[in-house]
Amino acid sequence: MTDLSDVAARKVITPTHRYRNNDKAVGVGNAFWDRSEQEGVAGIVAELDNGVLRTADGHEFVNFTCCSYLDLDSHTDVIEGAVTALRRFGVLDHCIPRSRVQIPALLELESSLGELWGGDVITAISAGVASAGLLPLIASGHLGNGVRPVMAFDKNCHVSMAGAKPSCADETEVLTAPHHDVDYLEDLCRQYERVCYVVDGADSLGGYAPVQELAVLQDKYGMLVYYDDSHSVSAYGERGMGYIRAHNPIRDERTITVATLNKAFGTSGAAIVLDGYGKHAHRVIERFAGALCYSQPMNTAAVGASLASAEIHRGPELIALQDRLNTNIALFDSLISTEQAGTSYPIRVVPMPDDAVIDAGRTVYEAGFYVSPVFFPIVARGTAGLRVMLRAGQTEAQIRRLGEVLVEVGAPAAEVSP
Amino acid sequence: MTDLSDVAARKVITPTHRYRNNDKAVGVGNAFWDRSEQEGVAGIVAELDNGVLRTADGHEFVNFTCCSYLDLDSHTDVIEGAVTALRRFGVLDHCIPRSRVQIPALLELESSLGELWGGDVITAISAGVASAGLLPLIASGHLGNGVRPVMAFDKNCHVSMAGAKPSCADETEVLTAPHHDVDYLEDLCRQYERVCYVVDGADSLGGYAPVQELAVLQDKYGMLVYYDDSHSVSAYGERGMGYIRAHNPIRDERTITVATLNKAFGTSGAAIVLDGYGKHAHRVIERFAGALCYSQPMNTAAVGASLASAEIHRGPELIALQDRLNTNIALFDSLISTEQAGTSYPIRVVPMPDDAVIDAGRTVYEAGFYVSPVFFPIVARGTAGLRVMLRAGQTEAQIRRLGEVLVEVGAPAAEVSP
Repeated sequence: MTDLSDVAARKVITPTHRYRNNDKAVGVGNAFWDRSEQEGVAGIVAELDNGVLRTADGHEFVNFTCCSYLDLDSHTDVIEGAVTALRRFGVLDHCIPRSRVQIPALLELESSLGELWGGDVITAISAGVASAGLLPLIASGHLGNGVRPVMAFDKNCHVSMAGAKPSCADETEVLTAPHHDVDYLEDLCRQYERVCYVVDGADSLGGYAPVQELAVLQDKYGMLVYYDDSHSVSAYGERGMGYIRAHNPIRDERTITVATLNKAFGTSGAAIVLDGYGKHAHRVIERFAGALCYSQPMNTAAVGASLASAEIHRGPELIALQDRLNTNIALFDSLISTEQAGTSYPIRVVPMPDDAVIDAGRTVYEAGFYVSPVFFPIVARGTAGLRVMLRAGQTEAQIRRLGEVLVEVGAPAAEVSP
Repeated sequence: MTDLSDVAARKVITPTHRYRNNDKAVGVGNAFWDRSEQEGVAGIVAELDNGVLRTADGHEFVNFTCCSYLDLDSHTDVIEGAVTALRRFGVLDHCIPRSRVQIPALLELESSLGELWGGDVITAISAGVASAGLLPLIASGHLGNGVRPVMAFDKNCHVSMAGAKPSCADETEVLTAPHHDVDYLEDLCRQYERVCYVVDGADSLGGYAPVQELAVLQDKYGMLVYYDDSHSVSAYGERGMGYIRAHNPIRDERTITVATLNKAFGTSGAAIVLDGYGKHAHRVIERFAGALCYSQPMNTAAVGASLASAEIHRGPELIALQDRLNTNIALFDSLISTEQAGTSYPIRVVPMPDDAVIDAGRTVYEAGFYVSPVFFPIVARGTAGLRVMLRAGQTEAQIRRLGEVLVEVGAPAAEVSP
């Protein structure tokens, strides 16, 4: 039992909350999630069969909030690639740090992805694990030109990057940059010998980084840019190289790009794409980039699936899948008016009144389509909406029917319907 | 080009280095790794076939630095379990946060592991990802009794836990506790309303946490203990519950245990084992414990392999494998004298003079066995050695021959050989 006589003398802890604040995150977010789950638009369990999800009580729906934009996740070659690798290597993981002894699985995949995208690739179990490992090494100057940069995290960058702020802050100065504010960054470049900007290549609510304007600063000041391009790799660009690699002229040590392999690539794991970093830097990453040095790499099933997906990326099927995705995006835009209409990005936020968005999401779900309601407190009042993600595998009939249901629940129809 | 007139005015950054220091980590560690690789005892690539590793130039060796202590990684049922799940679920991952929609894969595994070990299980892609997500939630009081605890990290705790110090330090006070110092912890319990001690259940260089003494403090002061029991789960205890769960009388919300599934369990991923936390806490974890809320869970191959491994844990085969591991440990102890001799722990550090340890490691490797040389600067001068890990699948002949080779390179023979 607690000795109560001591209680009065006990220390009171005041959190610093400089880079994170769970009181706020949990306080704000948990109410959102509880309401979503109560209203039946979250916490859903369903078996996937031939592109349709089916709950235990028999309700069937098509997922319009899945990031497997090309449906490669269920591609036969991808699944069989995983099976082949399991049987070939005979283990999911032979548990020892790869810096000591490794089976050739990861090296084969890194070689394949490096050839595919014309860079040097190091794998990780997730883009978040890659960022948690790389960003502090950049902050301390060990990955880069040796100069400790100020780390400027974009205000909207994904939490898998923003989560590294406290670790980076113990190695250098950390700032939060206004969203895509190139002038702010140029000002930093004038004040500091070295600047690293941390930003999504493609945002999870739509929109791309200003890659060409950033390249001007990279060229002029040697600014380093760290991109997470998870939402556009595979879905965008030649051989699915993603928006950043397709448009960024700075392909040397001033650009580092990470991308998940769980979204449009269709498998599991992540790729770090580098240019101009030599063997020394690769060794530093393998040895010191956080979890990249532990004995837990991408497992062989994920490696085999990824080798198969990379093969698909090399051929005409990828182009056909990208075309189908773009056709589906255009079809949706012809039906529903959103701020994102007309862009190549596969995510749309269908605006809804705050007091109607949950009911709308539930009605759409009951009609056979899962879309994600986003509302206060996770977005500002007046900006609620239904998040819709297009995929190559959705049929014309499904998208047209979704459009009808969305209009029925109050979504703004597009002005000219074909 | 940089405007040189500005350089003189540029800000100089001084790192705080309160909880981490890459200058030191990379400075010390890289020399160790470079030397290991130059001398051929690191950076090895080899195919695994029937328990033997073979390099491209034909050298064959048995791995004595692999944490798959029961050789379940290459068990046919485990590999076929992965294949079955891939075919059943048809995707490695259907990319959407599980708090919105999930296929039943993770729930089935969590139910199986929960039944196996008599607790509530939540999965993660790695123990490091679990710790990076859970520790800041504990620090802020959101996982626990609502009181913000002082976080006392054991001085020797694995870097996957210690790496969370900066994030925890933004939510509460963070201290580094002397190794296994129960008096120090009791003193903290008198000073603070709530204390959380963060420690390995079984250390990676041998030795267990003082679980019963810690339980006294848990009982007396409500101290929370966060264990990473990755090195003993499966290898130790009834149904492989691990050292902590086998000996800890505090099975309620005051104990949280995480364990990798990549070591003795033989698969890929991690388990968080909880008792006495209700649905609310589970939801908080799924929604706010860092990467546990992203759309990147354990993939279905890892889930299927883990379901198969869990089945093996329920039957007599696990006991037989644990017995073989213990027999191999005892055989090694009968041959070579180490500080760890006589313990149930599968890791031994064979002492070697500083100036001989690398040559010894290379000679042992050339004789057909991989052991890990550890030496200054990653351990103190005078404490160099060869790290040896025993496994159930190593044969008596292999262990006896390794013992001979170790004695030939200067290892101390055990006093009485059977």
